[in-house]
Amino acid sequence: MTRKIIRNGRIVTAVDDYTADLLIDDGCIVAIGRALDVGADVEVIDAAGMLVLPGGVDCHTHMDNTFGDSTTCDSFESGTRSAAFGGTTTIVDFAFQRKGVSVLEAIERARAKGADGACIDYGFHVIVTGVDDQALADMQHAIRHEGVSSFKMFMAYPGSVMVDDAAIFQAMRMVGQHGGMIALHAENGTIIELLIKEALAQGHTAPKYHALTRPAIMEGEATHRGIKLAELADAPVYFVHLSAREALKHVVEARDMGVPVFAETCPHYLFFDDSAYDSEDFDLARYVMSPPLRSKESQQALWTALRTDDLQLVSTDHCPFCMKEGHLGRVNQKPYGRNDFSKIPNGVPGVETRMATLYDGGVRAGRISLNRFVELVSTAPSKLFGLFPQKGTIAVGSDADLVIFDPDAPHVISAKTQHGNCDFTLFEGRGVTGQVKKVLLRGELIVDGDRWLGKTGSGRYVARGESGGW
Amino acid sequence: MTRKIIRNGRIVTAVDDYTADLLIDDGCIVAIGRALDVGADVEVIDAAGMLVLPGGVDCHTHMDNTFGDSTTCDSFESGTRSAAFGGTTTIVDFAFQRKGVSVLEAIERARAKGADGACIDYGFHVIVTGVDDQALADMQHAIRHEGVSSFKMFMAYPGSVMVDDAAIFQAMRMVGQHGGMIALHAENGTIIELLIKEALAQGHTAPKYHALTRPAIMEGEATHRGIKLAELADAPVYFVHLSAREALKHVVEARDMGVPVFAETCPHYLFFDDSAYDSEDFDLARYVMSPPLRSKESQQALWTALRTDDLQLVSTDHCPFCMKEGHLGRVNQKPYGRNDFSKIPNGVPGVETRMATLYDGGVRAGRISLNRFVELVSTAPSKLFGLFPQKGTIAVGSDADLVIFDPDAPHVISAKTQHGNCDFTLFEGRGVTGQVKKVLLRGELIVDGDRWLGKTGSGRYVARGESGGW
Amino acid sequence: MTRKIIRNGRIVTAVDDYTADLLIDDGCIVAIGRALDVGADVEVIDAAGMLVLPGGVDCHTHMDNTFGDSTTCDSFESGTRSAAFGGTTTIVDFAFQRKGVSVLEAIERARAKGADGACIDYGFHVIVTGVDDQALADMQHAIRHEGVSSFKMFMAYPGSVMVDDAAIFQAMRMVGQHGGMIALHAENGTIIELLIKEALAQGHTAPKYHALTRPAIMEGEATHRGIKLAELADAPVYFVHLSAREALKHVVEARDMGVPVFAETCPHYLFFDDSAYDSEDFDLARYVMSPPLRSKESQQALWTALRTDDLQLVSTDHCPFCMKEGHLGRVNQKPYGRNDFSKIPNGVPGVETRMATLYDGGVRAGRISLNRFVELVSTAPSKLFGLFPQKGTIAVGSDADLVIFDPDAPHVISAKTQHGNCDFTLFEGRGVTGQVKKVLLRGELIVDGDRWLGKTGSGRYVARGESGGW
Amino acid sequence: MTRKIIRNGRIVTAVDDYTADLLIDDGCIVAIGRALDVGADVEVIDAAGMLVLPGGVDCHTHMDNTFGDSTTCDSFESGTRSAAFGGTTTIVDFAFQRKGVSVLEAIERARAKGADGACIDYGFHVIVTGVDDQALADMQHAIRHEGVSSFKMFMAYPGSVMVDDAAIFQAMRMVGQHGGMIALHAENGTIIELLIKEALAQGHTAPKYHALTRPAIMEGEATHRGIKLAELADAPVYFVHLSAREALKHVVEARDMGVPVFAETCPHYLFFDDSAYDSEDFDLARYVMSPPLRSKESQQALWTALRTDDLQLVSTDHCPFCMKEGHLGRVNQKPYGRNDFSKIPNGVPGVETRMATLYDGGVRAGRISLNRFVELVSTAPSKLFGLFPQKGTIAVGSDADLVIFDPDAPHVISAKTQHGNCDFTLFEGRGVTGQVKKVLLRGELIVDGDRWLGKTGSGRYVARGESGGW
Repeated sequence: MTRKIIRNGRIVTAVDDYTADLLIDDGCIVAIGRALDVGADVEVIDAAGMLVLPGGVDCHTHMDNTFGDSTTCDSFESGTRSAAFGGTTTIVDFAFQRKGVSVLEAIERARAKGADGACIDYGFHVIVTGVDDQALADMQHAIRHEGVSSFKMFMAYPGSVMVDDAAIFQAMRMVGQHGGMIALHAENGTIIELLIKEALAQGHTAPKYHALTRPAIMEGEATHRGIKLAELADAPVYFVHLSAREALKHVVEARDMGVPVFAETCPHYLFFDDSAYDSEDFDLARYVMSPPLRSKESQQALWTALRTDDLQLVSTDHCPFCMKEGHLGRVNQKPYGRNDFSKIPNGVPGVETRMATLYDGGVRAGRISLNRFVELVSTAPSKLFGLFPQKGTIAVGSDADLVIFDPDAPHVISAKTQHGNCDFTLFEGRGVTGQVKKVLLRGELIVDGDRWLGKTGSGRYVARGESGGW
Repeated sequence: MTRKIIRNGRIVTAVDDYTADLLIDDGCIVAIGRALDVGADVEVIDAAGMLVLPGGVDCHTHMDNTFGDSTTCDSFESGTRSAAFGGTTTIVDFAFQRKGVSVLEAIERARAKGADGACIDYGFHVIVTGVDDQALADMQHAIRHEGVSSFKMFMAYPGSVMVDDAAIFQAMRMVGQHGGMIALHAENGTIIELLIKEALAQGHTAPKYHALTRPAIMEGEATHRGIKLAELADAPVYFVHLSAREALKHVVEARDMGVPVFAETCPHYLFFDDSAYDSEDFDLARYVMSPPLRSKESQQALWTALRTDDLQLVSTDHCPFCMKEGHLGRVNQKPYGRNDFSKIPNGVPGVETRMATLYDGGVRAGRISLNRFVELVSTAPSKLFGLFPQKGTIAVGSDADLVIFDPDAPHVISAKTQHGNCDFTLFEGRGVTGQVKKVLLRGELIVDGDRWLGKTGSGRYVARGESGGW
Repeated sequence: MTRKIIRNGRIVTAVDDYTADLLIDDGCIVAIGRALDVGADVEVIDAAGMLVLPGGVDCHTHMDNTFGDSTTCDSFESGTRSAAFGGTTTIVDFAFQRKGVSVLEAIERARAKGADGACIDYGFHVIVTGVDDQALADMQHAIRHEGVSSFKMFMAYPGSVMVDDAAIFQAMRMVGQHGGMIALHAENGTIIELLIKEALAQGHTAPKYHALTRPAIMEGEATHRGIKLAELADAPVYFVHLSAREALKHVVEARDMGVPVFAETCPHYLFFDDSAYDSEDFDLARYVMSPPLRSKESQQALWTALRTDDLQLVSTDHCPFCMKEGHLGRVNQKPYGRNDFSKIPNGVPGVETRMATLYDGGVRAGRISLNRFVELVSTAPSKLFGLFPQKGTIAVGSDADLVIFDPDAPHVISAKTQHGNCDFTLFEGRGVTGQVKKVLLRGELIVDGDRWLGKTGSGRYVARGESGGW
Repeated sequence: MTRKIIRNGRIVTAVDDYTADLLIDDGCIVAIGRALDVGADVEVIDAAGMLVLPGGVDCHTHMDNTFGDSTTCDSFESGTRSAAFGGTTTIVDFAFQRKGVSVLEAIERARAKGADGACIDYGFHVIVTGVDDQALADMQHAIRHEGVSSFKMFMAYPGSVMVDDAAIFQAMRMVGQHGGMIALHAENGTIIELLIKEALAQGHTAPKYHALTRPAIMEGEATHRGIKLAELADAPVYFVHLSAREALKHVVEARDMGVPVFAETCPHYLFFDDSAYDSEDFDLARYVMSPPLRSKESQQALWTALRTDDLQLVSTDHCPFCMKEGHLGRVNQKPYGRNDFSKIPNGVPGVETRMATLYDGGVRAGRISLNRFVELVSTAPSKLFGLFPQKGTIAVGSDADLVIFDPDAPHVISAKTQHGNCDFTLFEGRGVTGQVKKVLLRGELIVDGDRWLGKTGSGRYVARGESGGW
């Protein structure tokens, strides 16, 4: 591999901010310095006036994931290419243990999908839907030998993926002893199921009832329960897509006491709120994700928590379903629930818009610092999920996953100009300032402006170390 | 200045941790890399097996400071040399505005002392004991033109340095608007004065009554009051030497709400507790500092808060007075209060022991991570008080203030082997592992094992930028 | 019925405290006054030097209740007679809806038992173990027409009486709209079941493991969950036998916000703690109740909460099982779990010792006032569960349920001198001051010192009004 | 004195609610019963359909009090007569220790005023403006021998009545040991003084600036400080006129921990909010009281706290100044501050409207129960300030201070129909339901509809017992 040098960029990490050259060799950063003296054979990328950021790490994506009758519209290929254009060079997606598929088989299957299609690097959490001795043994093996140190469990969706408190506790206790961490989808599924049943019985079939049947207080309840299970198990715990201040309150309280509780939120909760659910129109299906959009008060609390480190990272929960049935041949997409909101597949796209929206709405709006931005989108996820220091920073020895970002470039977000398979984005038409210009994956330029230079399948599986360190 | 290269050290910053060479030119770090190719004229320091840390930054020292009838026993020279041996390359000491000495004159006088004696780099906070229009104007000028962006005010010591709430509020409001920050000594001085008077009236003259007349609840009260004044003033606030969980509670609550409240604690609160005040012996004068040592519960809470970032930094409040009257010619030292605890000068030495004790008792004991250690002793103080990125990190362009630290070297702390003027240390006889081996100040080797290679007066004044950014 | 007058007693209610005569006619209080002028035909009871208190109301007893293979050793007769000797003139016991027995049938059956055996007045809560449309309709009917306005549900004992969150929520919502209240046994049954299974698998069969498998944190979790379900249902909620500060914390927080949350504690939690579980001895089966005894810190918090009204009443959870198998012909008592702690029937006697122990340890010990004592044992339970003003006070028109109590009489508690069927009491050998001397039920003297003057079956069913008013 | 009987009223106390006759002899209640058989010489008052309540007790009034250049417009006579028409039969007003007037002299002077003019019974708190050995001795004497067990101190109004923290602490500690209690006006006077000075310097002279210069956060600060002083002193503390949720928060937190902290609020805070300060008009002088009206959020929190017992009583802070200069010959009234809001005398009338407004807006509006209403306006103040059981209840032996109240009578509040000297009421024109019909003071009918039947000077001084019991 040719050596490359990125000249004169403003290098920003979670703590530092300085101007220097970056020398890349064999996919890694090998030197950082002022006016580095390198040979003529070194390819030069000029980054003057640009930010040079560590590649984004998105720990919550669903590429080619199937839930019930519906499958997300992005393949591993389309989804990871879209991620790359958004400045993300590593994702942690999901392997799915379910009836007939063990934890280890689930990892194997997921890795096979990744090997074929990945345009960027990737790892997996395993979704665990049943806990028995074999599953526990497999989880321990996965942590030690398969590079999978995090496992997602659902407190919602009874009859499907929901597990009971004892299963969660057993899994927490085991993985906590071996350097792993349980990630929880925290909503009280039993209550939600009842509310959905009642809403449908009353003829309430429109998308807005998705939100009305998933009250914030029940996210708060489940979050509290998850924390107490973790305390009893003496294990760390991670909350995915935290959306409500009723849930945040418990995370804050636990962290104040030094309990190892962690949580992400997602850009849609930071930029949209429940005033979106203002009609019976089916078009609101675009706002159907779980948890749903929350109150403005919750939104404000999330922003504060990003600054105070009560929320540690911003992931996307990229879980795209098309608004138009049959788009690119995808079926059972959003219209699948036209007559029954409970059948609308839950989820929105986001993997390509994370960095630009958070930079614009966070850094430029004065809510978070530039260093904190880097920490939220790259460093913290890498550290928490065992990718660091290979990923998540700009330092000698780290992978040369780099984003060259123009902090002053205005652009307008549109599904039309994005690179995934989804036919909509919640941010459609939003003008933002700050744009990904070039992306390097392990030293290879894979995105250059609008051009895709990467190769399908060139993304590598990353065997992760331990998860859950404070 | 000759260029230098530090080879093969394990470089640790607040976020990163990797092995590389560091190239230094003209006092700054100019390159970091693997096997950097440099000319033969470059002086090589081998750091294999060593940690390479950013030089310590201690934002709370009292060199040659006079309080009442007593003056701290360290001169600027002895104190800063002692600091250097402890791995600290920058201090922020105090200038003293008082009757007849304006804020700007105070800075001028302090700078003159520093220019003569400083062995390491230094800045100043100004102690403000009176607020009027001139003082407010001077403070604004000091922030913008003198590199002084922080001002200390006392809620204790009535009749001496205590100021009232209105003075604090006015100062907060003004400096908050101009990029400055007020640091508070938060104890309710009025109550303490009464308790002291009552104790003495009862014939309670021994050092232990120093502690008994400064109840933790009154540190809590003053801390809460200071936070509310800051909220009203819409300004950041910093609490020096926070010692009691009764005070910490308010800092935690404010930070949870996103209010810009910051606080330091000191090693003596982390390693000693109020069980020390167990007799009427005058030898306990060595434990006379303000606030006094607190309960074990408070101590535990402080350690937790260091991890959770509810406390952001560890400073020393190095304020040395000798236990033996006349030691090195110093008078009015601890024995000055032999018959009246209220006359014992308040303070203990600590500038030389901060890094070794915190590394041993914090990092090695598993309470904080190595990155967090660096953040607490160097990065966070630099960022909070406007020294960053010149100080506080290892990055291209930053001053080459570096500590080469042997993480495995055991040694025993003793006043005899320290380099300041004080004749005691609270840590006397304590065995710790982890030792400062070499110290560079702007690229110059000033400490090499036991040898002092620096020059008196070579420390430079650092004009600081804004204080108080979250 | 002859008229009676109680002369010169010190009458104490939840608010008042004065000396007067009480005139009783037709079972009710008809006049209170100084030196009441009544005819010679009026029977006089001299109460000079005595307290005259409203009869105790105990809202949590289990007379002749069957759980699994075991039945409590007190019949309605023995249990209510024992209660009377302890100063309690009304109990609220349980009717048991279960598979094949509807809510209304359960009430009918319970009333039949009461009609035969009751020595004092009584009402019922219904234990609800399954919620469907019929059950919901029955509950509404029971509130409006049967005098049953409270229903107990279990968050513990899966596979037996435990119900899920949706069932609790549905019941809360329905009864909340109609003047009823759900009472919860709040422990996380799923987790406890797992811990029990694991303990037994490890050969831990002794009674102490009962306590170790029911952690306080899981009472806290369930209590929080119950409160959030009640908030969502917009209904009041009541927690039975609250024992842990981890649970109390959530009750306090909710009440501070004005949420209608109520809780009782029991004397055993106030006077014993988990230091009792100090050996593998089977004799510790006497301390097997659910929840188990808690830490001293919890105990202290309970006492504080009794004073601050964060706990509103003291009930006994009288649920007696004998320590000796075959005592009075009872089988499957405590020894039933000799080789498996999970089979030890859960519960302790207490109905006869409530008032004397709480008077001695509460009022005389200075923890609660005399008025508050009356409120805790009589007035508050009456108001909360719809018995007031018929029960719970001394006022014109109220039932003449009265206790003549000697505040200065010392006595020693012993199972031998008690009047129920149980062969032990946790308070065995405890000397207390303050003793029930005479008890009147609707004007009839039923207890006079050691003599039983009442009649089996003379206790009346009390149709209760609404439950859950703040 | 003739005996009287009140027939068939609905008697309501803090706990009871029943219909009966009340027999009064020699000023006291001697019997309560159904169809009491009394002789023909007994005067009968028919109360069928009416509530019979214990006479109101108002623990915060300022009759003929002088502050600075202004004196309240009600004399002891006019003020207590006005109180009687409002259903209040006992007030606790203020004696004023100041330079040259000792605590005991202050009591003597106040008693002289009362003896001349009181139309109802009365006691005094002493306002203490200076603490020395004599003052402390006098306070102890006053508790034990003068029937004065509460003392008010000001954390506001520097240069006038404000005392420092040490004075408050000393007084708390002394009175706490002897059965007394300190009442605090909790606002940070130093900050307010500065804000006032700055407002006036900016030409802000209108009444609305009174509110803007007394921020809620500074009531919160002072309240917290007062609580911590009380904790250190191990003494109870009482907060007068609590108005802001920022202050309430600290009361709630302390009470949750069992700390003996008590607080009143006033009707004006319950029925008006800071939206009143909506113009520069001088007419807003009517809303000038301290603390000023607060936000709607605070108001809501106060109502909740009345229900949860976090606020224990409702007093009026009746401190009337006329809107028209010269009204009834009063000078230096509200217009005194026409050109300088800081000179507007602080205070509003309220002694006559307390019970009607709280009944209408509290009980009828469903915010508090009828028993709680009685507790707030009569029982709790009596118990807390040592008037119970002479005052504050309807029980045998208590003073026959009684209010016959028509719960269904509508009327319109107007200054014109009130009986005090003030020319305005904040409630002008407000229609309320529930009206005082008759008032008895120690058995004498003093108010009968619109007619005044009482006698000036017939009010008696009440020597109070201990204050501050929980």
